[in-house]
Amino acid sequence: MKSDKSTNVVWHQHQIAKADRVRQKGIQRPAVLWFTGLSGSGKSTIANAVEQLLFAKGYHSYLLDGDNVRHGLNKDLSFADADRVENIRRIGEVSKLFVDAGLLVLTAFISPFQQDRALVRTLHSEQEFIEVFVDTPLAVCEQRDPKGLYKKARAGEIKHFTGIDSAYEPPLKPEIRVDTSTASVAECAEQVVAYLAGNGYL
Amino acid sequence: MKSDKSTNVVWHQHQIAKADRVRQKGIQRPAVLWFTGLSGSGKSTIANAVEQLLFAKGYHSYLLDGDNVRHGLNKDLSFADADRVENIRRIGEVSKLFVDAGLLVLTAFISPFQQDRALVRTLHSEQEFIEVFVDTPLAVCEQRDPKGLYKKARAGEIKHFTGIDSAYEPPLKPEIRVDTSTASVAECAEQVVAYLAGNGYL
Repeated sequence: MKSDKSTNVVWHQHQIAKADRVRQKGIQRPAVLWFTGLSGSGKSTIANAVEQLLFAKGYHSYLLDGDNVRHGLNKDLSFADADRVENIRRIGEVSKLFVDAGLLVLTAFISPFQQDRALVRTLHSEQEFIEVFVDTPLAVCEQRDPKGLYKKARAGEIKHFTGIDSAYEPPLKPEIRVDTSTASVAECAEQVVAYLAGNGYL
Repeated sequence: MKSDKSTNVVWHQHQIAKADRVRQKGIQRPAVLWFTGLSGSGKSTIANAVEQLLFAKGYHSYLLDGDNVRHGLNKDLSFADADRVENIRRIGEVSKLFVDAGLLVLTAFISPFQQDRALVRTLHSEQEFIEVFVDTPLAVCEQRDPKGLYKKARAGEIKHFTGIDSAYEPPLKPEIRVDTSTASVAECAEQVVAYLAGNGYL
């Protein structure tokens, strides 16, 4: 039997590289579509619509959102400042793993702070991080209030609510900007997919 | 324009389910292959070999190991007891996300404690967690010592080293057991793939 050391060398030379996985998945270039915007702005809704379009075309994607992250990987985190930073950091690191696996990964979190999003951007190579600013005006989000959270925040029942008593720092140079107050969900999703197609991701 | 609420309902009805992703990826049933064993037992080497076999057959997999987890997602964790538990918990949660994405995910960590592995098992549905015990004897691992860690542990330069001054609790009922002291890496990898094929995963 060969020694473990030499066996290691042999096998590690043949490790499957990101490029191999990418080719397998039919994607030209894996990346993270990082949706950011106020609560109720339409992040998850648009991200889901984008996924449906990608899936229909045979591309491999995955959506990270509150449903599959907050109650699992990040269930130990509170909404205190330090934990919010850690929340975004971990999502950034997991999105990097999915990109390494060759997928298009979509994330849908408010991620209100410029510094946290900048940190996630540094985790990825330049063309692997695509910031999607869902720039629906606060007034529209608050009028929709799909989960009744703005009402509770205005009543003081929820503290540090983004847009009410906690800041939302808009992206300075997002790769994509959409606004669900002036375009339908389907139109916003088509805009995102058009960006991917036009920039060599698909 | 439809209200955000009704739009949400429409789109969420069409969310891509795990079953859809699985069909797309050619896998019958996604799962985590959880490799556990001593340092130097051959976990990463076998896991890499399994990936190559799966890739050659067109299946979509991903390997989580120290290289892509310790310096990223879990870089805030030390080797203290509580952090070791958290290390395994996070890897378990991330493996669950990859299974949800429809992939076969392989993990290669010593994961010495029965309780931690049991926790990860509970995160997954029954047939989605496959424990692979790399049961290479300590004496063989120590004789190989590919990274010189056993030598340092014996010299007291590394504390709490599994197998030397920290316990390794072997799996009681692993789905698969391999031993690189009696079989080649290629044979061990074939054994794992045969298990997947024989149990409806491929």
